[in-house]
Amino acid sequence: MKIALDAMGGDFGPPNLVGGAVLALREYRRIGKLFLVGDTSQIEAELKKHRCNDPRVEIVHASQVVDMSDRAVEAVRRKKDSSVSRAVDLVKHGQADAIVSAGHTGAAVAASKIKLRTLPGIDRPGIAAILPTETNVFVLIDAGANIDARPEHLFQYAIMGSVYSRHVLGYARPSVGLISLGEEDVKGNELTKEVFKMLRVSSLNFRGNIEGRHLFENPVEVVVCDGFVGNVILKTSESIAVAIFAWLKHELQKNAKRAVGAALAKEAFRTIHRKTNYEEYGGSPLLGVNGICIIAHGASTPLAIKNALRVAVESVEHQVNPHIIEEVQRYHETTAPLERAIH
Amino acid sequence: MKIALDAMGGDFGPPNLVGGAVLALREYRRIGKLFLVGDTSQIEAELKKHRCNDPRVEIVHASQVVDMSDRAVEAVRRKKDSSVSRAVDLVKHGQADAIVSAGHTGAAVAASKIKLRTLPGIDRPGIAAILPTETNVFVLIDAGANIDARPEHLFQYAIMGSVYSRHVLGYARPSVGLISLGEEDVKGNELTKEVFKMLRVSSLNFRGNIEGRHLFENPVEVVVCDGFVGNVILKTSESIAVAIFAWLKHELQKNAKRAVGAALAKEAFRTIHRKTNYEEYGGSPLLGVNGICIIAHGASTPLAIKNALRVAVESVEHQVNPHIIEEVQRYHETTAPLERAIH
Repeated sequence: MKIALDAMGGDFGPPNLVGGAVLALREYRRIGKLFLVGDTSQIEAELKKHRCNDPRVEIVHASQVVDMSDRAVEAVRRKKDSSVSRAVDLVKHGQADAIVSAGHTGAAVAASKIKLRTLPGIDRPGIAAILPTETNVFVLIDAGANIDARPEHLFQYAIMGSVYSRHVLGYARPSVGLISLGEEDVKGNELTKEVFKMLRVSSLNFRGNIEGRHLFENPVEVVVCDGFVGNVILKTSESIAVAIFAWLKHELQKNAKRAVGAALAKEAFRTIHRKTNYEEYGGSPLLGVNGICIIAHGASTPLAIKNALRVAVESVEHQVNPHIIEEVQRYHETTAPLERAIH
Repeated sequence: MKIALDAMGGDFGPPNLVGGAVLALREYRRIGKLFLVGDTSQIEAELKKHRCNDPRVEIVHASQVVDMSDRAVEAVRRKKDSSVSRAVDLVKHGQADAIVSAGHTGAAVAASKIKLRTLPGIDRPGIAAILPTETNVFVLIDAGANIDARPEHLFQYAIMGSVYSRHVLGYARPSVGLISLGEEDVKGNELTKEVFKMLRVSSLNFRGNIEGRHLFENPVEVVVCDGFVGNVILKTSESIAVAIFAWLKHELQKNAKRAVGAALAKEAFRTIHRKTNYEEYGGSPLLGVNGICIIAHGASTPLAIKNALRVAVESVEHQVNPHIIEEVQRYHETTAPLERAIH
């Protein structure tokens, strides 16, 4: 398969991106071609540093980069030769099977939406982040693609998240929860109250409202929320996990007894740290566009980029888009008329 | 001083609430009178269990309880004899200096807003949650009082959070951050973009947008967001902290070597666990009402209720309301005309 990596986006630019690409090439033989899209000389310099002359690499030059301060849609319209636009073009023209970007999330979403278009029946794409529970993982959708969401968008996220959970994560009948302020039906804001009504009459395995406090304790398999809230959940989770480990580390270094204890328990810390480390998850699929786009963390390390490329490989293998189309269509044929009858 | 405790609200009812009251009476001699508001026979039974016949306790009978499934404003209007309404009445009529409730948050907010009214210049009260960093704490406002917020509400939260941070937490010139999707000025939803403009021209120490990932790492002293987002942050933070400790505990029990390590490092775990345990914080002041109202966690343990009563005691001592009134007035005299001139 062929993957296109935006080799310029992200907080740390080509060093981390090309570094991650080199790791992925070593590990994933299924990658038949890896397009590195961006400034040729910078990419070549990084490849040289890693002594990488893997024949599967192909550099595609792009003269522009979307800055974090650019407005998303404007950036796509005006910077025609940006690395993210060029990378999406490769997917659009069938030259690549998937794109990975760690750059400006809004620009990657806008470029994918404008160039690849959304799937039939889907109004807005949503980012499906995979988060850990003690024994498994769940899907959080939308993790930041769609900031001012309408009820039908969240409803479509519930469908897409369920399809992803079933076909990629292997849950037979994934349970769906709607992020709100309390479990009771009456709790929520204007947006969630509308979505609640739609989900209740749907054929999805809807469990009702859930609160942030149940996310990691009694989780459902699909967590639905708007992109602003989802992004806050994602970033807050990362932040507190990092903070707890940092605080614990300092406390464990405070005296010799604790340090010995920490050394003996090292493997336990390592297991949990790995579980809560976003670098291990790498990237989140942007569901709902007609193509495969993986959104990586802006602050991605080479390890995170490698894992984002792994998510791209898996997404190409799983091909969830036909299932999403089918499920949305089935919804329109069955539940939608019922819902209209109720209203 | 005199405190009124809604002795019925909360997920576990009178046992935890009266249990917490008994702990607080033992510890805080500054409480001169503690009104326990609710069903007399249930409260008496709980007091008896604890062999508590402290003369500072006064039971105020209330025949109704607001259920978690009630709608907030309706509950206040229709259940006139609810424990939360009766408790707020005690503050309204000057019989108590503060109220503490672990019940339906919306009902406690609505009862306070309707009966006590908001302070001059404040449109909506906001919950100021206190969250830990490694070395200190910060204020998150609004943590769930105002679900469908407008820009001016968030601006008022920034003022109130700053006053609280200065007068109660002791920060000389508290920095203010606005929760958004990226640090750049252009990032955010319709609500936050408007608030950003207002904060930028204000005399507050505004640091711009902040992301969830900076909350616990490079925190500002006042974090501003709408009540839906704030509640999600609060609950998610609790959830992930609880989850990490549970996962770590299981991992540490997996073999004898790790168990020995855990025993040696016990004090380090205890310190961090205490820091991340909401029970230690107890309750959050509802800022912006003309009186003192402390919102405790629905799932409060007796320890959490004791600490919520401590927050009430401290709030009575600090009296931030006159400072809020002064600060809002100063804003209207100085920044507001400037802002109008700009628009």
